[in-house]
Amino acid sequence: MRIPKELLSAFKEEGPFLIAAHIDPDGDAVGSVLALSAALEAIGKKTFLYSRDPVPKYFKFLPGRKKFISGLRPVLKKDPVLVLLDCNSPERAALEGYRFRKSIVIDHHETENDFGNVRWINHKAAATGVMVYYLVKALRAKITKEMATNLYTAISVDTGTFRYSNTTSDVLRASAELVDAGAEPNRIAVCLYQTWEYKRFMLLVGALNTLDVRDGVAVIHITKRMYRATGTSSEDTENFSNFPRMIGSIRVAVLLRELDQGGWKASLRSKGAVNVARIAERFGGGGHRNAAGFKTNSDLKSIKEALFRAGRRSGR
Amino acid sequence: MRIPKELLSAFKEEGPFLIAAHIDPDGDAVGSVLALSAALEAIGKKTFLYSRDPVPKYFKFLPGRKKFISGLRPVLKKDPVLVLLDCNSPERAALEGYRFRKSIVIDHHETENDFGNVRWINHKAAATGVMVYYLVKALRAKITKEMATNLYTAISVDTGTFRYSNTTSDVLRASAELVDAGAEPNRIAVCLYQTWEYKRFMLLVGALNTLDVRDGVAVIHITKRMYRATGTSSEDTENFSNFPRMIGSIRVAVLLRELDQGGWKASLRSKGAVNVARIAERFGGGGHRNAAGFKTNSDLKSIKEALFRAGRRSGR
Repeated sequence: MRIPKELLSAFKEEGPFLIAAHIDPDGDAVGSVLALSAALEAIGKKTFLYSRDPVPKYFKFLPGRKKFISGLRPVLKKDPVLVLLDCNSPERAALEGYRFRKSIVIDHHETENDFGNVRWINHKAAATGVMVYYLVKALRAKITKEMATNLYTAISVDTGTFRYSNTTSDVLRASAELVDAGAEPNRIAVCLYQTWEYKRFMLLVGALNTLDVRDGVAVIHITKRMYRATGTSSEDTENFSNFPRMIGSIRVAVLLRELDQGGWKASLRSKGAVNVARIAERFGGGGHRNAAGFKTNSDLKSIKEALFRAGRRSGR
Repeated sequence: MRIPKELLSAFKEEGPFLIAAHIDPDGDAVGSVLALSAALEAIGKKTFLYSRDPVPKYFKFLPGRKKFISGLRPVLKKDPVLVLLDCNSPERAALEGYRFRKSIVIDHHETENDFGNVRWINHKAAATGVMVYYLVKALRAKITKEMATNLYTAISVDTGTFRYSNTTSDVLRASAELVDAGAEPNRIAVCLYQTWEYKRFMLLVGALNTLDVRDGVAVIHITKRMYRATGTSSEDTENFSNFPRMIGSIRVAVLLRELDQGGWKASLRSKGAVNVARIAERFGGGGHRNAAGFKTNSDLKSIKEALFRAGRRSGR
């Protein structure tokens, strides 16, 4: 992976750095920020870590997570260089109101934005964590166990632990080096996939009981009553739509969640060739080929009928 | 990984080979047999592939799977050298009644058996597929896409696709080379984890509805009536006990299956430190630290009470 020369120079010559994750941060964002911070500190730079939203409970095991700050004022006085990770606009990091003398962007998302004095955007990278891995090596910082754990987690989250189509041989080789540096594959997998709260598991079982399959479309739903009965909230439904995808005949899996204010939020995941963004757009929503969503005030029965119809059309 | 010299000599000097998988073969057995066969054929050797049991439907995607034979008579006339893969005694391959002029054993299971003229047993190997990978390289056979797919699958099955504690950096590096040789991580993951029959998924949902959790022990059960209602059989319950392990507080997950002839079969899986073989032994069964089982004629309620008691004891 080729790293822009001006990126390396900026990190070597500048400082201090305010490294920011996007709002609603995932494992790739949190892990990448923590690893880059540790690497820059190791080469003598001062860093501040910013996330508007708290680190989600699923990523509380990441070493260094307490380094995130919430108040920006004292940091801004130090006139830091901004580093956006896993996103490419200040809005995505809830930093649109601020000015920085210089800003660096490192991201693997496709973008229409041209923010940033120094930009490194690589759509082909499986995770921002992979890019940060190569960057840390180029900065000649020793990869510590803490960095390795953060980067291995970042890569795991964005590749489904090496199950998605972005899993290349380079991703596996980088991960091998991270294991040599101290990342523990089993411990990280247990933290990511086997630390569910009992109530969350019961919500999943309840949702699976609503499974309705027709024309290659699987729909599960969660009502407000189900949240109440289990003491859970929408935060607990992360990844639920992956479960119906286990069924071989399914091309589209949909999770419908009843909203507090009434109406439903639909999360669509495709398996294979169906473009679920096209389906979501028909309902006024949008997203990516493989993951999209929409909100609607229709009733459950009508939404499901419409989804099955859309599935029939997309199957042809 | 050091390969015994006499093993390489045997493969280079001998032939033909009868390569056998263990009964009730898993992905590591089937993938390893198919890959080794292809490699030996590539260096000019004749091979025959034997499995007493048919290749399970979950592994029908493996290239070359039709090369397995069921009738041994015609093969035995060719006086082949026996190669046992992923097991280390003729009994495990249902070959105890036959004599061979020479036999080779390649396995990663712990063993008390000393069968075989040439033995290569490596307890530390994550999968027999890893050993076969190094062997194919040592034989200087080019790793084809077919071999790569078989070996990557073998490794995936035995490491939970890089989630179990046997996932080392060498395993990841070997897998990276297999991807370079043509193995497709996403396609293999979909074949392994996302091709369930609808009826199997409904059986899982039914089983999860029986979830009973106490003292760190999670028990789910399947009755004969549940098999009938969904049109499934015990073959469809593969991996079911992994699901309750998603709950963080669980130390032992148990799947109880009602047997045709009455009574129950228990499959225990541990998470972390509990030795489930110790628990199974109390019920007259046995197994490994992390996976064990037993059969009993007790009724469901008594079995569950006894399992919860055992969980309480092991938690102390």
